[in-house]
Amino acid sequence: MISEKMKKLVGGSSAIRAMFEEGKRLAAIYGRENVYDYSLGNPNFPAPAAVNDAIRAVLDEVDSTVVHGYMSNAGFDDVRQTVAESLNRRFGTAFAGKNILMSVGAAGALHVILKVLLNPGDEVLTFAPYFVEYGNYVGNYDGVLRAIPVDAATFQPDPEALAAAVTAKTRAVIINNPNNPTGVIYSEETVKKLAAVLERKSEEFGAPIYLLADEPYRELAYDGLEVPFLTKYYRNTAVCYSWSKSLSLPGERIGYLVLPDELDGAEEIIAAASIANRMLGFINAPSLMQLAVARCLDCEPNLSGYDANRRLLYEGLTKLGFEPVKPQGTFYLWLKSPEPDEKKFVEKGKSHNILMVAGSAFAWPGYVRLAYCVSEDMIRRSLPAFAKLAAEYGLK
Amino acid sequence: MISEKMKKLVGGSSAIRAMFEEGKRLAAIYGRENVYDYSLGNPNFPAPAAVNDAIRAVLDEVDSTVVHGYMSNAGFDDVRQTVAESLNRRFGTAFAGKNILMSVGAAGALHVILKVLLNPGDEVLTFAPYFVEYGNYVGNYDGVLRAIPVDAATFQPDPEALAAAVTAKTRAVIINNPNNPTGVIYSEETVKKLAAVLERKSEEFGAPIYLLADEPYRELAYDGLEVPFLTKYYRNTAVCYSWSKSLSLPGERIGYLVLPDELDGAEEIIAAASIANRMLGFINAPSLMQLAVARCLDCEPNLSGYDANRRLLYEGLTKLGFEPVKPQGTFYLWLKSPEPDEKKFVEKGKSHNILMVAGSAFAWPGYVRLAYCVSEDMIRRSLPAFAKLAAEYGLK
Repeated sequence: MISEKMKKLVGGSSAIRAMFEEGKRLAAIYGRENVYDYSLGNPNFPAPAAVNDAIRAVLDEVDSTVVHGYMSNAGFDDVRQTVAESLNRRFGTAFAGKNILMSVGAAGALHVILKVLLNPGDEVLTFAPYFVEYGNYVGNYDGVLRAIPVDAATFQPDPEALAAAVTAKTRAVIINNPNNPTGVIYSEETVKKLAAVLERKSEEFGAPIYLLADEPYRELAYDGLEVPFLTKYYRNTAVCYSWSKSLSLPGERIGYLVLPDELDGAEEIIAAASIANRMLGFINAPSLMQLAVARCLDCEPNLSGYDANRRLLYEGLTKLGFEPVKPQGTFYLWLKSPEPDEKKFVEKGKSHNILMVAGSAFAWPGYVRLAYCVSEDMIRRSLPAFAKLAAEYGLK
Repeated sequence: MISEKMKKLVGGSSAIRAMFEEGKRLAAIYGRENVYDYSLGNPNFPAPAAVNDAIRAVLDEVDSTVVHGYMSNAGFDDVRQTVAESLNRRFGTAFAGKNILMSVGAAGALHVILKVLLNPGDEVLTFAPYFVEYGNYVGNYDGVLRAIPVDAATFQPDPEALAAAVTAKTRAVIINNPNNPTGVIYSEETVKKLAAVLERKSEEFGAPIYLLADEPYRELAYDGLEVPFLTKYYRNTAVCYSWSKSLSLPGERIGYLVLPDELDGAEEIIAAASIANRMLGFINAPSLMQLAVARCLDCEPNLSGYDANRRLLYEGLTKLGFEPVKPQGTFYLWLKSPEPDEKKFVEKGKSHNILMVAGSAFAWPGYVRLAYCVSEDMIRRSLPAFAKLAAEYGLK
């Protein structure tokens, strides 16, 4: 009774979400403390106290019909202005309120810009491994997502591979930096080279190729590493941001889309984005949360907490003989499967109550993803289970 | 630089939203108190105090990682269960939590069910006058919306017209009751006849025609009138609900989709809806608001306040010689234009700082819509302006 498109999806569904549901099932059987769930990017640290304080203050100070009411589809004017100024302070940009559209998370922002840009059959490129839901997002607008493998040694995008992949149909490139699932940060050097390729190819094909920066993990960068702000390197860049990870608000669906004046067709794109936000059913980003996050723009994530988790897990797994990629950002660890078929590795993990997501779910078999946005205690308790798993493979 | 589909929309845009922006512009020039803005369905009454109390209580009592975290894409299990039980108490239904999907408002719920049901080229029927955004919603999934005129005297749907309009391609019928823009409530008698037509036609074409009940105005029914709960009259009904109007929370984007077990293909539809909610970019309904509204299910709208507005405006306009349809529900008044081209009437109204929405925006020229979810005081102050407008037309 469901549509043909949905039939395929119900079959495939999301491996990540399936694992999340599996975690709930195992926890019911074995007790939550005996399940080591590394499946979902659901932040373990609570939102900074400033967030709930801001929510309470908004409720106390602002008229209810404003707090909970409709505003322009692009968001509250003052919130947009405040976000623009915050970005300008942090990145030396020159955005005004009109360059910001408040969105239902980064996913909502991506949908809005894809709806605005794509004609049926247009191609969108991204770098694998990648968040496979991108394929569904692009497919919603009858575009075609094509993934370009990153350099298998460094997990950095390969500019020459990008150059080879661009065609006359390429309308946009999605870059997720810091990267889910690898935890790698695309360096300034990489970004400059990618920008040069896109400039050259836009000129060659006589039409702009838009860069869509998907950046929910922007603030999660370790060891003092910088995450290049892409509008400064490439003119035709739109930024999709979410406070889901930085402020531990994934359930609230609050983020924004940056549409700089420098975009080819900026005025038209900005007007269309506001309409797209409405007609895709979002209408507007949740109002109370818009007002609350605008008061928390200087709040910082619990970076030291995630860093402690990162070190504990990375060092623990390394000692056991596993081969993890050292995460530079995000709260994901990308681990080489000890056997070629990582799905079997995931299954063996499950028999020790360890939940990991197979790399196939990111179009990159042979690896698994561990989300370490979990309690440090869970990581400690999981290491003996990993030790048993390592023993099964005869590691070390 | 934008897609072909969006180009058409940027040109057309929303007449309602354009009026909303126009209202902000006029208020800046003439002062808010001198603009009579009847354009937007943005509730004037604040949310019941219980809503903000519930938000504060949730923040105080529930762990932050739960309040603001991811949950299953369909919503918090306990919230879904609570909503189901509330519906069962009110309507004598027998829903379980699994029959409820928490959504980003009624618009989000409509998008989810349309995504689940529609193949390209499928037809969706609705009754004109109607919320024209339905056309965009259906178009998002490459369906075709066709509107059937209601009876021009009663503004009730005509079952025979429905029977004549159904084809082998008809996949769904959207019914908005109480109705935006007419303020009419489709009676039980009408509903029974529509259900009989759909039963007959489903059998004739050998495939179910789904009824999509869009019900954000359910609780806004005056003079003790009952709004039939459609799942009780027609098996293949999905209900799209929002607390936007009943609890004055339009900016928060919180509602639900009811998918009864009695639907043909219920199991498949329920599974697909959860995936659609995720892959359309909603991911899930805003988490804090899910938890808050679950504590406010017995809250009632300020019906007496809207009723006072309704009487004041209806009687005021009638006395001036206008011909309004007496609203039975919603907070809209449907007014016959004193000249055939209601767009000219809207323009003349604007010259008196009265903002109304042309019926053409609802595919029904010759009428205008006035949203009386405004202060009683604004209605009183607007009547002298309406008197001048009436004089221009030589009414009474």
